[in-house]
Amino acid sequence: MDKPKQGGSILRRFRDYRWDETELLAYKEEGSAPFKAITRQTLFRDPALGCELRYFEMAPGGYSTLERHEHMHAVLILRGRGECLVGDEVRKIETNDLVTIAPWTWHQFRAASDSHLGFLCMVNVERDKPVQPTEDERKAFEANPLVAAFLKKD
Amino acid sequence: MDKPKQGGSILRRFRDYRWDETELLAYKEEGSAPFKAITRQTLFRDPALGCELRYFEMAPGGYSTLERHEHMHAVLILRGRGECLVGDEVRKIETNDLVTIAPWTWHQFRAASDSHLGFLCMVNVERDKPVQPTEDERKAFEANPLVAAFLKKD
Repeated sequence: MDKPKQGGSILRRFRDYRWDETELLAYKEEGSAPFKAITRQTLFRDPALGCELRYFEMAPGGYSTLERHEHMHAVLILRGRGECLVGDEVRKIETNDLVTIAPWTWHQFRAASDSHLGFLCMVNVERDKPVQPTEDERKAFEANPLVAAFLKKD
Repeated sequence: MDKPKQGGSILRRFRDYRWDETELLAYKEEGSAPFKAITRQTLFRDPALGCELRYFEMAPGGYSTLERHEHMHAVLILRGRGECLVGDEVRKIETNDLVTIAPWTWHQFRAASDSHLGFLCMVNVERDKPVQPTEDERKAFEANPLVAAFLKKD
């Protein structure tokens, strides 16, 4: 369970992509959706803020769930490199690049085979739950060869 | 003037602490408050998000305004090192450290004399204006030798 508030201390030190007083969490409940080698930390969550700032990290070859939702994602790559699918575009991503995921846009992140991929993600505190593609929707993705190549790395 | 929305493109590339399609802005209006060698970029601002993510950067020896406000700051150091005053505490800060500035807490950031200091700052879109200390408030700070030493670097 996440703590209801994160960030009470003035300063939380960074060391090797962990932060003081900040729990290393499972990305999602195991078996709830497809994902691989990914963790989650909540860096800032406070009743005084309309958004949360989370840090997600994939080990080499790891990936997040292919999903979409009404709420928007504002992402800054903090560590390493990889690629992402956003809508029908596959893009290479490097440290400090910014990724904007508009409402209801399909998206998935994937670490390179030889690099971690860590990113900050800002989201509204009040947000809807993600949905995953149906079989038909997944087939439609695969009509695009670049997207098909991205997806088949699972 | 800031653009009303930031982050329309899926991917905005990073290069030398600038981002595609992201304007380099003055920290504040010149002469409106004390500050030195500091710039501002709005990384994410969108009607769908309750918060903005900004990037502030100080050249070596630069500093932000000593101020406070009702709204909270959630800060991640993205570049270099320096120190900050938060309330009556002076703390050294390094890349990727997290700093939490609670409502109505006096704060100021300062780059080291030999390093840039760049940080991400998440704030609510709807927020109040900062206030600066009165002469009496500034004198009260100076009763603490560590705080006095921090402030006199201006």
